[in-house]
Amino acid sequence: MKLLKYAKSLPLLLCVLSLAPPASPQRTADEMLTLRQLNLMPVPASAQMQPGRLPITGGFKVAIGNYADDRLRSGIARMLSRLAGRTVLTMPAALATDQNGATLVITCERAGDTIPSLAENESYSLEIDEQQARLVAPTVVGALRGLETFLQLLQGDRAGYFLPAIKIQDQPRFAWRGLLIDVGRHYEPLEVLKRNLDAMAAVKLNVLHWHLTEDQGFRVESKKLPKLHTLGSDGLFYTQDQVREIISYARERGIRVLPEFDIPGHSTSWLVGYPELGSAAGPFQIERGAGIFEPALDPTREQTYKFLDTFLGEMAALFPDAYLHIGGDENEGKQWDRNPQIQAFMKEKGIKDNHALQAYFNQRVLKILQKHGKKMIGWEEILHHYLPTHAVIHSWRGAASLAEAAKKGYNGILSAGYYIDLIFPASQHYVADPLPQDTTLTAAEAKHVLGGEATMWGEWVSPETIDSRIWPRTAAIAERLWSPQNVTDSDDMYRRLAVISRQLEELGLTHEKNYDMLLRRLAGTGDPRALRTLAAIIEPVKEYRRHQMRPQTMLSPLTGLVDAARPDSEAAREFAAKVDAFLSDAPRFALYGPDLEQRLREWHSAALALRPLIDRSPALQEARPLAEDLATLADTGLEAMSHLSAGDTATTEWRDAHLAKLDEAAKPKAALEFAVIDSLRKLVIAAAETKRPR
Amino acid sequence: MKLLKYAKSLPLLLCVLSLAPPASPQRTADEMLTLRQLNLMPVPASAQMQPGRLPITGGFKVAIGNYADDRLRSGIARMLSRLAGRTVLTMPAALATDQNGATLVITCERAGDTIPSLAENESYSLEIDEQQARLVAPTVVGALRGLETFLQLLQGDRAGYFLPAIKIQDQPRFAWRGLLIDVGRHYEPLEVLKRNLDAMAAVKLNVLHWHLTEDQGFRVESKKLPKLHTLGSDGLFYTQDQVREIISYARERGIRVLPEFDIPGHSTSWLVGYPELGSAAGPFQIERGAGIFEPALDPTREQTYKFLDTFLGEMAALFPDAYLHIGGDENEGKQWDRNPQIQAFMKEKGIKDNHALQAYFNQRVLKILQKHGKKMIGWEEILHHYLPTHAVIHSWRGAASLAEAAKKGYNGILSAGYYIDLIFPASQHYVADPLPQDTTLTAAEAKHVLGGEATMWGEWVSPETIDSRIWPRTAAIAERLWSPQNVTDSDDMYRRLAVISRQLEELGLTHEKNYDMLLRRLAGTGDPRALRTLAAIIEPVKEYRRHQMRPQTMLSPLTGLVDAARPDSEAAREFAAKVDAFLSDAPRFALYGPDLEQRLREWHSAALALRPLIDRSPALQEARPLAEDLATLADTGLEAMSHLSAGDTATTEWRDAHLAKLDEAAKPKAALEFAVIDSLRKLVIAAAETKRPR
Repeated sequence: MKLLKYAKSLPLLLCVLSLAPPASPQRTADEMLTLRQLNLMPVPASAQMQPGRLPITGGFKVAIGNYADDRLRSGIARMLSRLAGRTVLTMPAALATDQNGATLVITCERAGDTIPSLAENESYSLEIDEQQARLVAPTVVGALRGLETFLQLLQGDRAGYFLPAIKIQDQPRFAWRGLLIDVGRHYEPLEVLKRNLDAMAAVKLNVLHWHLTEDQGFRVESKKLPKLHTLGSDGLFYTQDQVREIISYARERGIRVLPEFDIPGHSTSWLVGYPELGSAAGPFQIERGAGIFEPALDPTREQTYKFLDTFLGEMAALFPDAYLHIGGDENEGKQWDRNPQIQAFMKEKGIKDNHALQAYFNQRVLKILQKHGKKMIGWEEILHHYLPTHAVIHSWRGAASLAEAAKKGYNGILSAGYYIDLIFPASQHYVADPLPQDTTLTAAEAKHVLGGEATMWGEWVSPETIDSRIWPRTAAIAERLWSPQNVTDSDDMYRRLAVISRQLEELGLTHEKNYDMLLRRLAGTGDPRALRTLAAIIEPVKEYRRHQMRPQTMLSPLTGLVDAARPDSEAAREFAAKVDAFLSDAPRFALYGPDLEQRLREWHSAALALRPLIDRSPALQEARPLAEDLATLADTGLEAMSHLSAGDTATTEWRDAHLAKLDEAAKPKAALEFAVIDSLRKLVIAAAETKRPR
Repeated sequence: MKLLKYAKSLPLLLCVLSLAPPASPQRTADEMLTLRQLNLMPVPASAQMQPGRLPITGGFKVAIGNYADDRLRSGIARMLSRLAGRTVLTMPAALATDQNGATLVITCERAGDTIPSLAENESYSLEIDEQQARLVAPTVVGALRGLETFLQLLQGDRAGYFLPAIKIQDQPRFAWRGLLIDVGRHYEPLEVLKRNLDAMAAVKLNVLHWHLTEDQGFRVESKKLPKLHTLGSDGLFYTQDQVREIISYARERGIRVLPEFDIPGHSTSWLVGYPELGSAAGPFQIERGAGIFEPALDPTREQTYKFLDTFLGEMAALFPDAYLHIGGDENEGKQWDRNPQIQAFMKEKGIKDNHALQAYFNQRVLKILQKHGKKMIGWEEILHHYLPTHAVIHSWRGAASLAEAAKKGYNGILSAGYYIDLIFPASQHYVADPLPQDTTLTAAEAKHVLGGEATMWGEWVSPETIDSRIWPRTAAIAERLWSPQNVTDSDDMYRRLAVISRQLEELGLTHEKNYDMLLRRLAGTGDPRALRTLAAIIEPVKEYRRHQMRPQTMLSPLTGLVDAARPDSEAAREFAAKVDAFLSDAPRFALYGPDLEQRLREWHSAALALRPLIDRSPALQEARPLAEDLATLADTGLEAMSHLSAGDTATTEWRDAHLAKLDEAAKPKAALEFAVIDSLRKLVIAAAETKRPR
């Protein structure tokens, strides 16, 4: 459900996003203190610090206590490699045979599910004292989750690396914790998927929702219906061997792979090879634009279901997960309205509208899936009385619609609030809860709420930029889905997010490093420093305004400043915190004063340096107004601070003139907007107020 | 030939490296001016600027004038994608049908060799006027070379992107322009090889020398002798399908793939699975250390040649290149000396020493290669009277030994001077010439000098760091091998190298971006800025001192400061240039004065900030003395500048004391050394001199 493209449903979503953190019962003060000393993400269900520490040296040894298999051994090898990389210590390659001498002993009872499943036991306990760390888990998957926690506990000081002594008991709050990656709009190579699977495992996500087909591309090889991928993909598709490689890679990390084949809409790429399935006459071309398109499968012809039986049967055999996602979203039925045969069919069958026609279609697809042993999942429009209760409703409207489904006995997952392609900050995603504090569900009903999924829709992401759109923000969503409900401190989340973000780089993620690379490319032969200063405090416009303001196609390069700029400006958050501290230090205005002034002067210098840089880099021409705004922001801030520091109240005329300037600067340009405007407004307003201690 | 590991032959190499640029006839002043306005690397054989420019817009169209094939079309698509990425312009996906309206018309006569070969015609001409660019080449490979030049010509200003009007006629000086990648010591995943092939193509290199076997790893699947890769590789090997994938990827870019199977020494990993081939009793283990190891194939047993016939036959069928590299280096014969059967064999056959025994071995191997249709190449020790003249001598002693072989009628390539693992600056590699100005070879003899290869030996490179050891320095070597001999301006080389380095990032190369990533990782949860300041002016120790000073194994993490630091400090070069300018501005000492002082104060601040950072990051403990040295360097520099600026001559005591401090700071620590010591020495010495205008 690539919802809200044209903002028609935006109020619903914003409603979810603006939910305040629930007034939940707090953890004990002790436990909060524990967590603030650590960098765990997601926060475990329970953790108690103990006195002492376990030193980590090159003599680090791992022993397996009970059950062992290749998946566990590979997981240990990966952990050791990251531990070695972070500490620059050479670690022994072989497992220790003696548990007593081992630094870490891992005790599992069993392998876990052969095919990763919703029922997988992912719990573990981790006890660390001065002699040893003991990781105990019923399944290898639980042990893998515990190994991630183990790595996150690593700390260092003058005495060397160590883990704090601690007792952790952990299990997820929700069993379904996913990330949707849309490879239909833009193909993503295998290594992109692999490194994102590694990142998912690092924050304990357990479902890769692989959105494989779209109007703009059909990305999976069908041996039975080969024109699907040969004609529908520009040659950019996954072979069945590659699909198996990804499934195996995911399984190694305890991650399910849920395939989505979006029907009956979003299916232009299917129709390029098989126009006879369409609801209008062909020929069809792979779609290059962004938006909602008319082509849809013809739900009135038996041939369509025969085709789907063949295709979904083939896919059901390829993808072992119990579920198969049929999409079902955004079919507006315009081709159905115009097709006399479809209209005749509806009249004959007494199908009153397109919604009912799609329900008829879904019901037929459901039978096909059941025949091939799959449970159905689809976007929430599929909810209908014919649905069996093992179907899963994928909600984009919010927790309320999820609750409604749960009351009817349907399982569901939430994606409203987790649309990471909308470019909202992590803090907004962090407050969306599949099962909010104020839920009216009974305990039995609440069990139908299985979890949620972050959705990485692919219109404006390339292999170079996709990581920066997913990470680190998705780690905050992963925490919402794993950690206890009362873990809601946004400041502490951001503190830990910065640490986790850097650790994700160990896995090859490019969210940090490609930022600077894109800026270097934009700077051409010039010095990128001024551009960095600008880019640090701007963000791409939110929701789906990017395409409205700066239209591109699926064939356009995603290498502009809007692609480099990040969704959740850390520099702007720091600036805001310092401005707040500065203003709260009235009437002295000393706290952070020199620091803020220096920052503002840097902006001013950068604005000057940007002019010649932009002159030589036509790719940056669109950023020229932003560079001019940067100078305005710097000067406005410096003037305001000068008033405040001198105790010389500014006039209301000055204030209004500068607020107007800020309003101008707040207008997006090049699909980018400054993330520091609110802080500057505060400075301007304060400068014109009579000073009194706050 | 992983030469010089223990510096025993170092004087030979340094002799090559310290060659001054030959006093060659200069290009015309016009042409030099042309080249200094452009960022071409390698510099073309001939280039004349013309008046005018060809604008580059989103309406950019390419037409093919004559011969076309998939390789050409793919090359055009890759060029367009990079052009789009750099300009942020959406380019048309389809080729233009009308040559008249096209921005770029590409005219080839033929495909070029089916299997890339030494005889490939790589020449092209590129004429750009205000209407059109015309790229003409006899082969598709020549056209691919020209497309790289085309991309390097892109410039921008306020009016937009454009190419300058120009006439270029270009062809390589040498036909063999290679990069050796040693995947034996450390395995490199396919994507590392692919992105390096892309980078090679970008600077017109045309041979990937794939060093596939070593004591520390056997990296290629053998279906006939599977214990080679299953037991000799830790599971890190290339399947034959993957080998074909790399060969095909290389061919798409006009690059040969030359496999090397290093025998009879460097063969421990062969013997893990087949100990019966060894010259001493097994069992054998994969070697984890760095150095020269004793295991060698037994040259006296027929079984060895039967085995090699099977193996080399299989490889000869897998690798289509006309040549196969047999290594032949660094076998010290210690196992031969101790093996009574081998000694008896030598006595019986009248083989007088190990060198002669290896010659016997090589002769046998030569026959096997001939049987399988391959020409032999090996390190220069293989040169012997029995060699056919189609064999190629791979020289590591220098151009003189290459000339000697040429006089005997043997073809040869040079790697002495191009050992990029020695961590010398690009400027040193740049002066090594396979055919120096002062060569005594006749024109006919000179034709035997085919070219050269940069050698990326793999002891201390990982997938994360290898790009930074190869690039950008190898682009300077590529220029030496392609461009006219008289292209020798080191300053201009560095100017262009910086531009090309950034462009290589478009191809996924990580030499720039992983630098900062490694520093972030080392900083742990701390601020990496001070570490960046330090890292910018230090370099890993040269030659093979790293392992002597800071021993590691093949299983050690390559994530230390020595792995992050780069071979050819740009910051140190800039600092040196500014110090020279400052001193030449005597007695005013105003030029760059404030800039240098600011730099030195930054060093001082960084030294202070590094202390707490190092306290929390045990991985940085080894850098503590460097941080202290950084403070010393900063203070010394500031004191010297203060003397100079004030016109207050320092005492000789002051000078000697500070020179002694610099000598201390010049001593490597953590296998790293400062690249700014010479510049500081100049400042200190100048401070104690009586001032007079220079």
